[in-house]
Amino acid sequence: MRALVLNCTLKKSPARSNTQALADVVIQALRDLQVEVSVERVVDHTIPFGVETDLGDGDEWPRLHDAILASEILVIATPTWIGRPASVAQMVLERMDAMISEQNDDGSYVAYNRVAGVVVTGNEDGAHHVISEIAGGLVDIGFTIPAQAWTYWNMGPGPGPSYTETDHKHDWSESTGKTMAANLVAVAAALKAQPIPPAG
Amino acid sequence: MRALVLNCTLKKSPARSNTQALADVVIQALRDLQVEVSVERVVDHTIPFGVETDLGDGDEWPRLHDAILASEILVIATPTWIGRPASVAQMVLERMDAMISEQNDDGSYVAYNRVAGVVVTGNEDGAHHVISEIAGGLVDIGFTIPAQAWTYWNMGPGPGPSYTETDHKHDWSESTGKTMAANLVAVAAALKAQPIPPAG
Amino acid sequence: MRALVLNCTLKKSPARSNTQALADVVIQALRDLQVEVSVERVVDHTIPFGVETDLGDGDEWPRLHDAILASEILVIATPTWIGRPASVAQMVLERMDAMISEQNDDGSYVAYNRVAGVVVTGNEDGAHHVISEIAGGLVDIGFTIPAQAWTYWNMGPGPGPSYTETDHKHDWSESTGKTMAANLVAVAAALKAQPIPPAG
Amino acid sequence: MRALVLNCTLKKSPARSNTQALADVVIQALRDLQVEVSVERVVDHTIPFGVETDLGDGDEWPRLHDAILASEILVIATPTWIGRPASVAQMVLERMDAMISEQNDDGSYVAYNRVAGVVVTGNEDGAHHVISEIAGGLVDIGFTIPAQAWTYWNMGPGPGPSYTETDHKHDWSESTGKTMAANLVAVAAALKAQPIPPAG
Repeated sequence: MRALVLNCTLKKSPARSNTQALADVVIQALRDLQVEVSVERVVDHTIPFGVETDLGDGDEWPRLHDAILASEILVIATPTWIGRPASVAQMVLERMDAMISEQNDDGSYVAYNRVAGVVVTGNEDGAHHVISEIAGGLVDIGFTIPAQAWTYWNMGPGPGPSYTETDHKHDWSESTGKTMAANLVAVAAALKAQPIPPAG
Repeated sequence: MRALVLNCTLKKSPARSNTQALADVVIQALRDLQVEVSVERVVDHTIPFGVETDLGDGDEWPRLHDAILASEILVIATPTWIGRPASVAQMVLERMDAMISEQNDDGSYVAYNRVAGVVVTGNEDGAHHVISEIAGGLVDIGFTIPAQAWTYWNMGPGPGPSYTETDHKHDWSESTGKTMAANLVAVAAALKAQPIPPAG
Repeated sequence: MRALVLNCTLKKSPARSNTQALADVVIQALRDLQVEVSVERVVDHTIPFGVETDLGDGDEWPRLHDAILASEILVIATPTWIGRPASVAQMVLERMDAMISEQNDDGSYVAYNRVAGVVVTGNEDGAHHVISEIAGGLVDIGFTIPAQAWTYWNMGPGPGPSYTETDHKHDWSESTGKTMAANLVAVAAALKAQPIPPAG
Repeated sequence: MRALVLNCTLKKSPARSNTQALADVVIQALRDLQVEVSVERVVDHTIPFGVETDLGDGDEWPRLHDAILASEILVIATPTWIGRPASVAQMVLERMDAMISEQNDDGSYVAYNRVAGVVVTGNEDGAHHVISEIAGGLVDIGFTIPAQAWTYWNMGPGPGPSYTETDHKHDWSESTGKTMAANLVAVAAALKAQPIPPAG
């Protein structure tokens, strides 16, 4: 089984990403469950704004598009800015908009029978909203969202340290991340054994 | 297989519910797939505000709570008011909050291995937001949300007719509702064949 | 100048309300600015679900409706449940839906030239989303939302103590609440001196 | 009085922007009210992702930042994608995040006493959510949101024509846009006559 993690931090490599630090917990838990995991930091690629799969002219989205379709599990990892998902996460959903109408040879939609989860960090508040926004978009695109397929670490109220600047409640976020990994794998396996049939 | 539809209209019976009219399409499609479907109009019951399973003193929620746990499929059907889910739908999520910690004998959480979908009506705008809010809450509680497990009929911009006052684009909402029913049944069946295991 | 605070806790009096505890900071700050403040705990009244100003038959909303219109400042205070505004807050917005079309003698809409703010508590996460949902609804209804017209105390990640069970970061929420009170009064005064004219 | 309109379409010039077409109604109404209006299509500029005012290295945000501060009125115009604000609109909010702590010489925050509104287009659904998300972010940053300071044109249910491909209900969106312009100007004028004082 394969998983793709798209880290939607605003910061290019090699800047340190708090979101990657929490995603790493989920990645390790997936690997412990024998899942082959790839990670891409979206801003390290040339991804123009748009809603088609290939915008040409150096567009590097098609490679990420193919990586999504090569995986049974997708994890969107994003920071929280102004209480909302990072613009990079929304840019990813927009590029995935084209997948709503892309079909396999048997007429099924390409996102069907894939599962997705969300990892969120932030230094104040907003995780559940970010999870709902991203999960809501992914369900539109055709992914299945397993029970508790998320983890987060947002600490408020008001401004405070970032995830990598403190150990406060990391244990809760890590334990939640392990359950997330287990649930993603379990539902992906169930859908592999017994897939959603193509629409009648 | 059993499904429970909770109609979260603000109007008590026998007032006509636009939301029920669209939910009926999904209910028929579920029955065509051999699912046994029950429907409850929440405001016809005495349901106090709160976050526990039994608030005593005439509380009729425990019966709905048991009906949820007797079903593999839950459908929340809600109108859109001020661009947001009906207060009755949020009241239902709040009463379901207690299910986050309720466990089966094997230690698994009670909502696990159940799937849920959303039906939305409105005379202006807001369906996708309402779907994300309710699906986001249900994932927190432990439900799995299948690919495109929703249908809606909201027509804008600005004020206009209600669902039962026009035939405009009913065909789209009905066809989407049939796909919703098929996807709910498919993922419920996959999870029945191969359930999410209790957390390690 | 008058202000009305609607406490949208799920708990009837005399149960202790964390939301009231934080709202009290804002109320004191408003009183220090010579504002006459009234407070109503919504669930202590008989308020049926609906979208009209008077549903008859013991409906106590009309008195709250009149209290809103007797005040230049409205504060909605709400807990966060499942990451979203309390059902009681949404019920209040729904009952206020009728105000969208209610007009003064000069043809202006009744909510125009009134300002509103939001107080949020929660023991995990979600304040900014709750603020956006309620402020978004109030702008639809015709209120003006001043700069930083909110305060909150939500502490995560994951479950933890409630507001009244800890002193953690109360100072931040209180200082933010005082700025909120000052901004509500300043914008209410500016609109009193120079009102939005009735629509042409 | 000056206004700045930031068009957050995903499409670079000279591609036709539906969002610009609706924004033009608001722009004309502002000009009729003697407001000097500038318009910028954000994607025509080099704007890197981030949360600081000047990211150096060809960053063209500082010029837009200065244009915001040279205007009493800000209008964010955005399409709806996957039911949510365009990534470009969120990118703009992120770059404006730095303004939360930028102060004038008298200690007041730079966004204070400025007003903001939102223009939304989409071919399906989502306007009220997009308005709440953007208005919620702008209130965090320090803007005041006047009563009904928005217009939109989203037509559903399901896929359909874009704004410039039909005349359906343009009259409603245009009339709402004129009220939006009048309300933005009225509240901006009231705050100019009697500003929010710097925090004590």
